[in-house]
Amino acid sequence: MQKKFKAGIIGGAGYTGGEAIRLLLHHPDVELAFVHSRSNAGNPLHAVHGDLLGETALAFSANIDENVDVLFLCLGHGESRKFLESTPIPAHIHIIDLSQDFRLGENVDFVYGLPEYNREAIRKAKHVANPGCFATAIQLGLLPLAKAGLLKEVHSTGITGSTGAGQSLQSTTHFTWRANNISTYKVLTHQHLKEIRRTLQALQPAYSGALNLVPVRGDYPRGIWITSYLECALTPEEAYKLYADYYNGHPFTHVSDRQIDLKQVVNTNKCLIQLEKVDDRLVIHSIEDNLLKGASGQAVQNMNLVLGLDETAGLKLKSIVF
Amino acid sequence: MQKKFKAGIIGGAGYTGGEAIRLLLHHPDVELAFVHSRSNAGNPLHAVHGDLLGETALAFSANIDENVDVLFLCLGHGESRKFLESTPIPAHIHIIDLSQDFRLGENVDFVYGLPEYNREAIRKAKHVANPGCFATAIQLGLLPLAKAGLLKEVHSTGITGSTGAGQSLQSTTHFTWRANNISTYKVLTHQHLKEIRRTLQALQPAYSGALNLVPVRGDYPRGIWITSYLECALTPEEAYKLYADYYNGHPFTHVSDRQIDLKQVVNTNKCLIQLEKVDDRLVIHSIEDNLLKGASGQAVQNMNLVLGLDETAGLKLKSIVF
Amino acid sequence: MQKKFKAGIIGGAGYTGGEAIRLLLHHPDVELAFVHSRSNAGNPLHAVHGDLLGETALAFSANIDENVDVLFLCLGHGESRKFLESTPIPAHIHIIDLSQDFRLGENVDFVYGLPEYNREAIRKAKHVANPGCFATAIQLGLLPLAKAGLLKEVHSTGITGSTGAGQSLQSTTHFTWRANNISTYKVLTHQHLKEIRRTLQALQPAYSGALNLVPVRGDYPRGIWITSYLECALTPEEAYKLYADYYNGHPFTHVSDRQIDLKQVVNTNKCLIQLEKVDDRLVIHSIEDNLLKGASGQAVQNMNLVLGLDETAGLKLKSIVF
Amino acid sequence: MQKKFKAGIIGGAGYTGGEAIRLLLHHPDVELAFVHSRSNAGNPLHAVHGDLLGETALAFSANIDENVDVLFLCLGHGESRKFLESTPIPAHIHIIDLSQDFRLGENVDFVYGLPEYNREAIRKAKHVANPGCFATAIQLGLLPLAKAGLLKEVHSTGITGSTGAGQSLQSTTHFTWRANNISTYKVLTHQHLKEIRRTLQALQPAYSGALNLVPVRGDYPRGIWITSYLECALTPEEAYKLYADYYNGHPFTHVSDRQIDLKQVVNTNKCLIQLEKVDDRLVIHSIEDNLLKGASGQAVQNMNLVLGLDETAGLKLKSIVF
Repeated sequence: MQKKFKAGIIGGAGYTGGEAIRLLLHHPDVELAFVHSRSNAGNPLHAVHGDLLGETALAFSANIDENVDVLFLCLGHGESRKFLESTPIPAHIHIIDLSQDFRLGENVDFVYGLPEYNREAIRKAKHVANPGCFATAIQLGLLPLAKAGLLKEVHSTGITGSTGAGQSLQSTTHFTWRANNISTYKVLTHQHLKEIRRTLQALQPAYSGALNLVPVRGDYPRGIWITSYLECALTPEEAYKLYADYYNGHPFTHVSDRQIDLKQVVNTNKCLIQLEKVDDRLVIHSIEDNLLKGASGQAVQNMNLVLGLDETAGLKLKSIVF
Repeated sequence: MQKKFKAGIIGGAGYTGGEAIRLLLHHPDVELAFVHSRSNAGNPLHAVHGDLLGETALAFSANIDENVDVLFLCLGHGESRKFLESTPIPAHIHIIDLSQDFRLGENVDFVYGLPEYNREAIRKAKHVANPGCFATAIQLGLLPLAKAGLLKEVHSTGITGSTGAGQSLQSTTHFTWRANNISTYKVLTHQHLKEIRRTLQALQPAYSGALNLVPVRGDYPRGIWITSYLECALTPEEAYKLYADYYNGHPFTHVSDRQIDLKQVVNTNKCLIQLEKVDDRLVIHSIEDNLLKGASGQAVQNMNLVLGLDETAGLKLKSIVF
Repeated sequence: MQKKFKAGIIGGAGYTGGEAIRLLLHHPDVELAFVHSRSNAGNPLHAVHGDLLGETALAFSANIDENVDVLFLCLGHGESRKFLESTPIPAHIHIIDLSQDFRLGENVDFVYGLPEYNREAIRKAKHVANPGCFATAIQLGLLPLAKAGLLKEVHSTGITGSTGAGQSLQSTTHFTWRANNISTYKVLTHQHLKEIRRTLQALQPAYSGALNLVPVRGDYPRGIWITSYLECALTPEEAYKLYADYYNGHPFTHVSDRQIDLKQVVNTNKCLIQLEKVDDRLVIHSIEDNLLKGASGQAVQNMNLVLGLDETAGLKLKSIVF
Repeated sequence: MQKKFKAGIIGGAGYTGGEAIRLLLHHPDVELAFVHSRSNAGNPLHAVHGDLLGETALAFSANIDENVDVLFLCLGHGESRKFLESTPIPAHIHIIDLSQDFRLGENVDFVYGLPEYNREAIRKAKHVANPGCFATAIQLGLLPLAKAGLLKEVHSTGITGSTGAGQSLQSTTHFTWRANNISTYKVLTHQHLKEIRRTLQALQPAYSGALNLVPVRGDYPRGIWITSYLECALTPEEAYKLYADYYNGHPFTHVSDRQIDLKQVVNTNKCLIQLEKVDDRLVIHSIEDNLLKGASGQAVQNMNLVLGLDETAGLKLKSIVF
């Protein structure tokens, strides 16, 4: 048996840190060496993540063990940059950052970690900036069109579960308020639009970047639903073929020829895509679990790539389905 | 004390019939004379609508009492037309039809029952075609713009509760499937687009009718959320004033200067509207309870108008809030 | 037209205060004179209770207007006692307190406000202590047995919606945590057991007070479900008659001869009861809306009684049903 | 690499069949040879179980391949017996039946498949009767007491998700009805009480079998919560030790020294137990996923035992958590 790689997590008490722990605990080729948390140091992981009772005796650590191969930064936006500025990380350690701090790639050596867009670059990367949750689902719905130079102004509806808002207590995450409720936020101004435009314009330089996103707070914990539409001359068959060809060989993104629904992907690392043609419009539905393909699952997928492992290792997850 | 008007309901076993019963049982000026249902004749109303236990001893009737002032048709689409073809209704009886059978007004004497659009015509009407649920919320979000001749291509997201699908048992209304799930249906092709376009083009004849609607099945029972956006040169203040002026004097539709959320209107007959300006786009959020302002509540509002009663009689409803 | 009574609310920013506002705004015989809130003084009511937009222009007040007939105390437990100690209330004003501070009636002149237990005493009362939410539903399920001297050890399951926990942000009211989740709290030790035992032993002095309650946090906002069982020799018919006779003349509590479900009472002031006999056990299901019959609705019912109004005035509420 | 065992599934279109498929597709030592379904023969699995898109190209089969090591019967109650009477199964094939047909073990050679009760007997068994979902959670909460001879009359509340009712469309599984609703069924008469009593009396012959169960329909898809209580003289420490000792060496059942909540086990094969002592009562909370530890997960656990595999193989599942 091959020796296992070692991984550490910085910021293990939040949602994305918890999901990274869950995935790494069961990973066949990687050992979870430590989980760093200042506020929880000394407590067993299951004191914070109750579902881990019976899974591991590991406790949160106040120290960072430099004897690891990969480090996941599961910190708030802005915190990753601060952490790396104040904490020297040995050059041999791969870093996978889940914040938005390095996604735009300005003056940093972080590769944008969307494997369906630039898998080969990720394989050679030392540092990976993991994409945003909305950004992942929206881009996966548009990449084949951008590559074919077919993007025009896009209109997108995006519905997200409450886990997207993190674990802080706010009026909009109060159960009594959110149950059976709908609201929107950052309409047409969501911060993920920047990283989306950058990718799409890299593929299709003439694309204006016109992308209108209506983000909706959904009445459920997990999952992102995106419906995008735009003018497009492709026939349904041509569109289906364009997408199927593009994602051929990508193990987590699949094009469905039936109607899809969000729970097909919840608690998995998959993205499913469905296409419809209505008059001169192409409609693209793309769905994912915001905490997995939209965050920690994709981070592990990126880890697999940078470590030279099978892309799907540790990510063959049982769907919740119901 | 004035003598009460009398009302009858045809098709009282479904959702909209049930809501009409609930409203009429508490109406100060109208008495519920009978509720017709072929399949439930003889059963007490509370055998079908369990929440009515203790409210009324009335039973479903197999007969239609012609001694009423107003008749509500709470039948499936296509059934209202058949009913009226096979059942002679005396000329003195007002008819309020909740199906889509007479909404387009071709060769029929039904007035389109959207009070914020044509209240005076409703007041004089004998027969009223009650608008569709999506159609009501979308139109209320766009009427002021249409009247001002400012409509351009509109992009709308519409999210509806499960009651919109009626009480028939289908895979998409199974609790196990729908809980925590999201899906879309009739994307860009929803049948309500016809009645919406007819109204908007009547107000703004030059409007092309370009209206793109993404209907979403929400994970909750009641309420419709609409977010529409379009190019618009108005400043935020001008837009707010346009809407506030338009709805001045309309007791159920209000413009909010704060962020709105769906539960503000659930179990009421209200529609709330919120505006946002982002660059050159005007964003309009409009919300309602699909069974009340979107169906039976608006039907009672129309009844109040045709009978010359206060428009709000019987419709001062306590919100569920939570 | 008769002159309206005037009511004031102390503590109007919370859940029970909000429900009291909603009920009083539509009450036919009572005018809401002021809503006191220190932290929100000057803000319109709808800034806190968004569903009131379009219902009232009233703002929160920093002052207490002594020119009222009745005062509702919608304060936290312990706060009502402090308020009354520090704030002299003129003797002519009726006080209805929703906290638990005066329910046990020790050394105070507060009458326990459970109309189905002591309506006549309430009618003559100056001050009323409104029962707890669990206490109301459990007592209504047991009163007829206690009056008949038939109580033995009782085993109760009680499931409550999230509104029972108030609007403070806690880990157990976080949407992400509570959605699709179940947990228990204060098992066999809930603080309402005291007031329940006091009432039941007043009716049946030989009753030991043995009452085991398993309180469950439910995955929904509103409503309390109670299932109690005990040894009982009555036949099903005898039990039904005992309950129907007891609640005869009480407008809000009804015995169902069909299976009940919680949503029959949500957003109403009703309590429904269903009985089952299994071998030598009598099973009693009793349900209510915790914020209405379990709090503010019953408070208004008590106000109606102390003011000599119809017991149901302002409480003919449309059920949410769905 | 060792040759994999082969498994087949009879009745793969329902919930438990689907869960068995999901588990076996990822099982390291077992290959899913076929999934039999008369009505779906020829369709790909993902046409019925949409989440399997991208996981497998396997289709439902009309034939039963006898070249398997183990057969799962995922059929309705009564159907398993009929199937085995009409279909000769070669003697070398292990059968694991998920229905209730053979659980009481009368005149059949099926071993009751509760590993925490009789793991050694299961290891030697040819045929296993998989326990009921409520039966599993309730027994795991009581086994240590029964073994110690400490059982007295037990009072249990059991709350189950909607998946417990299967995928048939019924009024009580309609989303609009069940959302935010609570109801009970088979109070004190649930059919699982028989198999529970049989086990408990085998361990503690003097136990009367007095067990009162209030089954509740919960407002969520997955998971069972049980709270049981009884008179018990043990101290909290003694009780904790009794349970921890009993479950020592059992990989899926753990005793928590913190408050538990249902989502700790959803989408896993675990059962968590928490104990509380209140006066002379011992309170036992026990939780599981009704489709996994309460059905298909336990079936795979039993398969592992009969095939001599690691008990946890294929069952290291990522919790949904949220």
